[in-house]
Amino acid sequence: MEFSSKLLEKAVYEMSQLPGIGKRTALRLVLHLLKQPKERTRFLSQALLSLREDIQFCQSCHTISDTALCEICSNEKRDKALICVVEDIRDVMAIENTGQFRGTYHVLGGKISPIDGVGPSQLTISSLVSKVRSGGIRELIFALSSTMEGDTTNFYIYRQLQDADIITSAIARGISVGDELEYADEVTLGRSILHRVPFENSLKNK
Amino acid sequence: MEFSSKLLEKAVYEMSQLPGIGKRTALRLVLHLLKQPKERTRFLSQALLSLREDIQFCQSCHTISDTALCEICSNEKRDKALICVVEDIRDVMAIENTGQFRGTYHVLGGKISPIDGVGPSQLTISSLVSKVRSGGIRELIFALSSTMEGDTTNFYIYRQLQDADIITSAIARGISVGDELEYADEVTLGRSILHRVPFENSLKNK
Repeated sequence: MEFSSKLLEKAVYEMSQLPGIGKRTALRLVLHLLKQPKERTRFLSQALLSLREDIQFCQSCHTISDTALCEICSNEKRDKALICVVEDIRDVMAIENTGQFRGTYHVLGGKISPIDGVGPSQLTISSLVSKVRSGGIRELIFALSSTMEGDTTNFYIYRQLQDADIITSAIARGISVGDELEYADEVTLGRSILHRVPFENSLKNK
Repeated sequence: MEFSSKLLEKAVYEMSQLPGIGKRTALRLVLHLLKQPKERTRFLSQALLSLREDIQFCQSCHTISDTALCEICSNEKRDKALICVVEDIRDVMAIENTGQFRGTYHVLGGKISPIDGVGPSQLTISSLVSKVRSGGIRELIFALSSTMEGDTTNFYIYRQLQDADIITSAIARGISVGDELEYADEVTLGRSILHRVPFENSLKNK
């Protein structure tokens, strides 16, 4: 792409550094901003800058939070002995949305992935391990995505805590509610048969 | 979506104001920035801000330019008497890419679209009309997209300049080079038959 303006070229370049945003999309977005009032660009830039500068993470669960202890960790009604281990804040939001979970979270900040240069030390695993070791934790629920990286991360944490006196569980995998069996992949279908639940239990939350 | 952080919520909101960026994508982009070094966010914000603040448009053709007269308009080798009328800078870049056009451009900045509240006065039509009226223009090539809005805009300009002593033309519509006839829409195929060209001409630029 040949640009008639260095300013435009720079803005498009920076925009196209975002994941999933190619040069063409970046140009479209930047041209859109140019057509909007200047405030729009100012608001966007300032919101991004102040997020990046002033971002805080909950001291306990490491989710993004404006306070030292996030709303969930500081909520007395939440079960602190039950911790759901997730990758990032999107998973927290997704699970919170279900309204089914009254425990707390631990946000790892990613998954172990040697290919992307992410080792255990870049994640909040040691914080989780010391939280468990300091006592008062009853159960860890692993809720990472079931990819190779997710499984590796789960297993790494599991090994670190093998001698700890806690229950470890993983979220159930199976056919989505409302999905047709014939379109399900065989791994998921296989697991859903292997980990079948008593029929009376399957009637809950319908 | 429920956010645990106002800073995050604001950044996601501002990001999701961009066209084609929903709340989920915005969250993904913002979380990506959080994982990157702070400079990334600073560079992006500054590039957008300085583009929006310091943007200039060519005094002659109204394309985005860092100089008062853009590179094309100030190039002595370009034919100033031949003007290609386009919607925005992306069209200029696309046509420049072909290497087939040695004239100049006129960037309208949009199309007449009452539904979007865009009237002739928001576009650079009057500047085009006075450019033609001040003389020295031989031909206008309409290269807007062939939508209702594009056709309306073409026709509006055509009417304004009906009495001017210039040639007006429109870019050829037809089957794309390499495309199969059977998959072409009938309007395009119809036009490509109606506006057929002498066979010898069709051999050029192959």
